[in-house]
Amino acid sequence: MSANPKEFLKPVSQLSAAATAPYPASRKIFVPGSRPDLRVGMREVSQTPTPTSRGAEENPPITVYDTSGPYTDPAARIDLRAGLPAHRETWILERNDTELLAGPSSDYGRAREHDPKLASLRFEHIRQPRRAKAGMNVTQMHYARQGIITPEMEYIAIRETLRLNELKNDPRYARLLRQHRGQSFGAAIPEEITPEFVRAEVARGRAIIPTNINHPESEPMIIGRNFLVKINTNIGNSAVTSSIEEEVEKMVWSVRWGGDTLMDLSTGKNIHETREWIIRNCPVPVGTVPIYQALEKVDGKAEELTWEMFRDTLIEQAEQGVDYFTIHAGVRLAYIPYTAERVTGIVSRGGSILAKWCLAHHKENFLYTHFEDICEIMQAYDVAFSLGDGLRPGSIADANDRAQFAELETLGELTKIAWKHDVQVMIEGPGHVPMQLIKENMDKELSDCFEAPFYTLGPLTTDIAPGYDHITSAIGAAQIGWYGTAMLCYVTPKEHLGLPDKQDVRDGIVAYKIAAHAADLAKGHPGAQLRDNALSKARFEFRWADQFHLGLDPDKAQEFHDETLPQEGAKLAHFCSMCGPHFCSMKITQEVRDYAASQHVSDEEALKKGMEDKAAEFKQAGAEVYRKA
Amino acid sequence: MSANPKEFLKPVSQLSAAATAPYPASRKIFVPGSRPDLRVGMREVSQTPTPTSRGAEENPPITVYDTSGPYTDPAARIDLRAGLPAHRETWILERNDTELLAGPSSDYGRAREHDPKLASLRFEHIRQPRRAKAGMNVTQMHYARQGIITPEMEYIAIRETLRLNELKNDPRYARLLRQHRGQSFGAAIPEEITPEFVRAEVARGRAIIPTNINHPESEPMIIGRNFLVKINTNIGNSAVTSSIEEEVEKMVWSVRWGGDTLMDLSTGKNIHETREWIIRNCPVPVGTVPIYQALEKVDGKAEELTWEMFRDTLIEQAEQGVDYFTIHAGVRLAYIPYTAERVTGIVSRGGSILAKWCLAHHKENFLYTHFEDICEIMQAYDVAFSLGDGLRPGSIADANDRAQFAELETLGELTKIAWKHDVQVMIEGPGHVPMQLIKENMDKELSDCFEAPFYTLGPLTTDIAPGYDHITSAIGAAQIGWYGTAMLCYVTPKEHLGLPDKQDVRDGIVAYKIAAHAADLAKGHPGAQLRDNALSKARFEFRWADQFHLGLDPDKAQEFHDETLPQEGAKLAHFCSMCGPHFCSMKITQEVRDYAASQHVSDEEALKKGMEDKAAEFKQAGAEVYRKA
Repeated sequence: MSANPKEFLKPVSQLSAAATAPYPASRKIFVPGSRPDLRVGMREVSQTPTPTSRGAEENPPITVYDTSGPYTDPAARIDLRAGLPAHRETWILERNDTELLAGPSSDYGRAREHDPKLASLRFEHIRQPRRAKAGMNVTQMHYARQGIITPEMEYIAIRETLRLNELKNDPRYARLLRQHRGQSFGAAIPEEITPEFVRAEVARGRAIIPTNINHPESEPMIIGRNFLVKINTNIGNSAVTSSIEEEVEKMVWSVRWGGDTLMDLSTGKNIHETREWIIRNCPVPVGTVPIYQALEKVDGKAEELTWEMFRDTLIEQAEQGVDYFTIHAGVRLAYIPYTAERVTGIVSRGGSILAKWCLAHHKENFLYTHFEDICEIMQAYDVAFSLGDGLRPGSIADANDRAQFAELETLGELTKIAWKHDVQVMIEGPGHVPMQLIKENMDKELSDCFEAPFYTLGPLTTDIAPGYDHITSAIGAAQIGWYGTAMLCYVTPKEHLGLPDKQDVRDGIVAYKIAAHAADLAKGHPGAQLRDNALSKARFEFRWADQFHLGLDPDKAQEFHDETLPQEGAKLAHFCSMCGPHFCSMKITQEVRDYAASQHVSDEEALKKGMEDKAAEFKQAGAEVYRKA
Repeated sequence: MSANPKEFLKPVSQLSAAATAPYPASRKIFVPGSRPDLRVGMREVSQTPTPTSRGAEENPPITVYDTSGPYTDPAARIDLRAGLPAHRETWILERNDTELLAGPSSDYGRAREHDPKLASLRFEHIRQPRRAKAGMNVTQMHYARQGIITPEMEYIAIRETLRLNELKNDPRYARLLRQHRGQSFGAAIPEEITPEFVRAEVARGRAIIPTNINHPESEPMIIGRNFLVKINTNIGNSAVTSSIEEEVEKMVWSVRWGGDTLMDLSTGKNIHETREWIIRNCPVPVGTVPIYQALEKVDGKAEELTWEMFRDTLIEQAEQGVDYFTIHAGVRLAYIPYTAERVTGIVSRGGSILAKWCLAHHKENFLYTHFEDICEIMQAYDVAFSLGDGLRPGSIADANDRAQFAELETLGELTKIAWKHDVQVMIEGPGHVPMQLIKENMDKELSDCFEAPFYTLGPLTTDIAPGYDHITSAIGAAQIGWYGTAMLCYVTPKEHLGLPDKQDVRDGIVAYKIAAHAADLAKGHPGAQLRDNALSKARFEFRWADQFHLGLDPDKAQEFHDETLPQEGAKLAHFCSMCGPHFCSMKITQEVRDYAASQHVSDEEALKKGMEDKAAEFKQAGAEVYRKA
């Protein structure tokens, strides 16, 4: 733990080299939009050619979705103390519906700003906060409903499409673009994602774009079941561990490996200052659970929470640029007794804090009673709701019970209210659910919450594997993603056991990128199978380096390969350590395939042509080795 | 690599201590059957009491399925050079349908026996092989069809039941035994698994008991969709790596972590001797792919394979005690051209070897034409068929294609033939399949193969994560297990990259135990949820040690916990590193629960009773800490 993060938060050299190194065999590309300041960053992975008997066959580069922002752009100069460029600022200013405030309008924000003891912790270049002008609504949903396509929406349409229209007309991709028909469970994914489609989905409430006007550093992204499935990662310090420096490093690590959004769940010291450092340097939307910080302000005494101080916390965080808030407004007083007979009661921290408040006062949850007041704050900064599932099950035993579903129905009621204010909403979901009960969760969410995007934690499909809950939950996450969940909240191997370190963040993200991608394939998202096809072709052709580079974690793949065959030559070998040169099925199958293909062998022909002739031909061809020259 | 394994294969001290250490807080128990030599080993995990305001509440021990055999029995004396006790020998002798041979009846077996160069490699106490008397059929299916319940079947009924009948009558388990209703997709899992049910399922061909009469060291287990889902692990040396010593250590490691069967896929040197060491020391059924060894005998030249030498290999291995053979008899000549247009052709090693043979000779696969001859060998030793899917897809692109399904239909045809000989059969399945196509695989297998047990590799649900294919495939394995697959062949993180080491074996097994258990829960296997419930209760009550001990990998769970809070006291703490003492949702929810429970608060009551009164009561109770005294 560091007493003074500034000593550590020096320019980029102080981030670990691993966090900012360019991806192997990749270059950052920018796909232009309709205006010069709209350039969508993607990663292009180059491939080596395939040697064939007809000469080298070119393998085209593969474009992949990139969440890492400027950190993997060799042209970008990273200075953590200055923060990332506010590339979205012009778009916000052009709308002319916001005003710059002289300083924080929350009491707490002002107090922190003027506390000399915090000087050494404070981010140096705090921007003046911005807020909607009086009477204005600055949410993406509000614009969408007025028929306005914002630059953010156009950015997203380009980002989600991954140049598919261009590739479709390029013959090099023809075979690679073939894919299986999906099963979409009522999702309506278009062949082409246009800016207008993005607008319509946001207007309808079926997708959200979390983009606080005070987080202009972020790259627009969308969460909705007709788009690519997204993943969220959680970081944050606690009373017993972590420094600001470590959290910033984890944030950069998270976006590198593919985190689409980031929740800062800090519950330790200096939450306000930690968050400022994170947001100013974060290229993806940041979410928080404001009740955590509110509770810290009352020294952990839930019964001392008040609406006034909670409201001040919302404004404090909205003016720092938090893009979505988890709000546990569905934990109603009447539902709390439903949890008494559970095996694991209330396991959501937010849920238990509010349950305690409700019981102590024997009053209805103040987040529920003040919900419209909260909406007014949200619309002034464009903070999206992530309606929290405070009563989610914490064990297989408690899945799909009365407490959980009563809360879900209330979240649907609140969704309607938020939409009345043009405030964006997603719905949080469980938790721990055995496989046979997962679909019921998705179906009920769609119907009770009017297709607002579902954002689930896992779900974990068994409780018996502490230390491996990234796997117990990736199983459930892939399924619920297929059924229609728009964003999956990752679970790391440390779940239930401790706070994740960098390695756990990486393990959790890769497990969830797998789940999300498996879901995209199953739903039949256009172009989703391209990367699988390219990697499989590389695998079949023994292009080892290409196989590594196209994978979700190139470093790990190469490391595993090199454990058995470390020599550089092995990466060019037409066999691998599993079978050795004699038994390699890939090698043998290539011979078979070359032969079958060259002969146009088919069922009927095989019978017609003389079998003896064929056998002789094959032997004569001497197909003992992979024929490349 | 060691030149002389005997130097390493000394008594138990030469196995790593980790492989044979007793599990923490566990004892080996033996549940007696109807005869004194029928004792079924299980593991019993003890729990600590829960402190409550009414004194300590006892938490009963939890019985778990145990595949580790004598290796975790402190009373057993392990001597790898002598092999495990032949505890099943009496049962085999009693049937009086087998005879002891003077020595190996295969040419190869005899040659190896008399080769002086192999003296240093050879297992010391090679038993004389046993074979059915002329005209006799010694398969478990044969007995089952005659209405005979063998000791093996009774053993299995006890083993699968995990003392459930006893626990049902013990009030300490009443709450823990509650579970969700399953969704079984046509499986017919009884409330109680009786020896007669085992017999009927084996007779029907819906389950198999792989138990070669020459592997009397093995503990009977069953593979069928009305039983617990099983997992297989693969080990084996290759031309470029591994020694006998390493393979034996991996075998012990595999059964320790929960491997239900073990395939020895060696393709390197001294396959015959390696296998002898493994089988003599292996408490679970051992499978092989005989064509691998056959190919070694012809120096890797597939076209030189003959029926005669393959037959000799089957007998050689059957007399060593291999319990099931993967036989790629469904790779028919006419299907091979179907693979020409695939992205990854033929990826099964066995499949590609046979495809090459078929094309070289332009003749039908000799395993197909000699299938009845093979059945005669199988029935003389009770070796089960694992009908290989030589044309399984090796990429998402190739899933569920014509080649794959044509072969599957042929496997159904062969199943009928095997059953005619009372030979047990399971069917191997893919491979790489996106989620939306998994169920079609299961449904087609059940209908084409008449409900013979399905045994699948994964399937992997995406190709883009080399280095993490235990996860890409656990997602598919859990689903296909739920749909009805009886055994899941594990995939390690090294899949596609290298040979698994011990750590990879552990990672692969735990991922697959998770998938298999998630499937058991989803199908509603009686008692499956008991361990989840017990672990969740321990978690809720901050019984950290109990939580670790009940998990699939107690060591890893404790290690992760201790990384953040290493002090011994932390394992007694009523909070953890995730939230710290103030924010702990478990602590808060316990207060809520105690209060709600004590007040019998309900919806109606809450309205009726004065809210102010309740608030005062709660505050007065001062529920600031977890109340235990």
